[in-house]
Amino acid sequence: MYYETRARSLLKTISWRTWATITTALLVLAFTGRFELAIAIGSLEVVAKLILYFFHERAWAKLKWGKREMPAFVLWFTGLPASGKTTVADMVHEELLKRGLKAERLDSHDLRGLFPETGFTPDEVDNHVRRVGHLASMLEKQGVVVVASFVSPYRESRDFARRLCANFIEVHMDSTPEACAARDERGLYEQARRGQIADFPGVSAPYEPPLHPEIHVAVDSLAAEEVARLVLQALKPGRNGARAKAPHLARVQHQQS
Amino acid sequence: MYYETRARSLLKTISWRTWATITTALLVLAFTGRFELAIAIGSLEVVAKLILYFFHERAWAKLKWGKREMPAFVLWFTGLPASGKTTVADMVHEELLKRGLKAERLDSHDLRGLFPETGFTPDEVDNHVRRVGHLASMLEKQGVVVVASFVSPYRESRDFARRLCANFIEVHMDSTPEACAARDERGLYEQARRGQIADFPGVSAPYEPPLHPEIHVAVDSLAAEEVARLVLQALKPGRNGARAKAPHLARVQHQQS
Repeated sequence: MYYETRARSLLKTISWRTWATITTALLVLAFTGRFELAIAIGSLEVVAKLILYFFHERAWAKLKWGKREMPAFVLWFTGLPASGKTTVADMVHEELLKRGLKAERLDSHDLRGLFPETGFTPDEVDNHVRRVGHLASMLEKQGVVVVASFVSPYRESRDFARRLCANFIEVHMDSTPEACAARDERGLYEQARRGQIADFPGVSAPYEPPLHPEIHVAVDSLAAEEVARLVLQALKPGRNGARAKAPHLARVQHQQS
Repeated sequence: MYYETRARSLLKTISWRTWATITTALLVLAFTGRFELAIAIGSLEVVAKLILYFFHERAWAKLKWGKREMPAFVLWFTGLPASGKTTVADMVHEELLKRGLKAERLDSHDLRGLFPETGFTPDEVDNHVRRVGHLASMLEKQGVVVVASFVSPYRESRDFARRLCANFIEVHMDSTPEACAARDERGLYEQARRGQIADFPGVSAPYEPPLHPEIHVAVDSLAAEEVARLVLQALKPGRNGARAKAPHLARVQHQQS
């Protein structure tokens, strides 16, 4: 994921014009400066410079100077089960891709599908979240924006992920267990309340909300589209996709009005 | 990690010349074709085109068309403990970076350092290797070459990693437990033989050698530098760093002579 700096374009411009003007001057000299030949020279110049320009471009395409890696970031959605993380993270990811960012999506469902033996005990969840944090940090290091959505109920493992990442943006999808249960199409809250699911955050296991999330959204009175819009607003990931800067967030807090 | 296609350069060349020639024609028309003004026009053209070219470049720098992700690959070193995987993988990684490839290094020691709770039972090792395989595949998908070195003693988990990756190149560092024990500076083989380390591949646990590794090196009579050279030779990762193609390996087998 590269963009080209203005300095690169400037040097390339000077380089091209130097060669092109030398070519024109030599052509004019060769034709001894008769005006009737201006059209001929012009035509010849077009052909000559087309070829010259092309090889000039090829040479520059191999030069790394002035091509920079885009600064990436890790957008980490945390919140109770059925707080809307996956839906909102999908929307945000799609929008970042539309803006031309190189972005990867990491979701709890996909990873647990791939590694079905991952359990739900605090230790297993912690280990899982820390490994995902490591994965996210490796992608970020290589210039890939990561949109991750995991319940990630424990502060310790979220902070482990934060320490590994250069630009970690925690998004707290703040909801109540009651509101999540109402949103929960799979009936997990009901099963957890009946004691059929052990270690269920918000029911039979703790959920430790982030103390200082970069982005906080009280989601219960908002539609998913509105939450996604608020997150993107807080991120400000560049007006044009190709030049998006990593967000320079202090502590943007979005409270419902 | 992008390179620019010839088609992109060709279109850019035509685009530039169209605008530049229109500019020249309009200037000549404006100056009514007097020869004495040729130098003046030429000078003016240099200035005008410098500015035009620069903004033309800036516009193209934002266009994605014809910019392609470099095809990446995963180079996976497997072999008994102390068979020389880390040393050789480090050398190969360094060489790939020198050739301008975007390459990440994943090593068993680093990862076990980061996740010290990862155990050595067959199940734990399998799970660890499969998660590393997933990490490697995510990096590969984003255009990053991965150089991984893990004992990864079980075929099943190596094949899991292979299935996730688009271009998985297994390097078997083939050595005997005796030769590895002689190479082993940390005395792990000795401890394993005394029963102080359980599940030690080659001593108290099986090591399942790859049946059809893309690259096979019988390392025992070779210096690490020679092994690295053989691996790079088999890889053929492009003559110039910037345009390296993913290796199209059939089944390159390097046997010691």
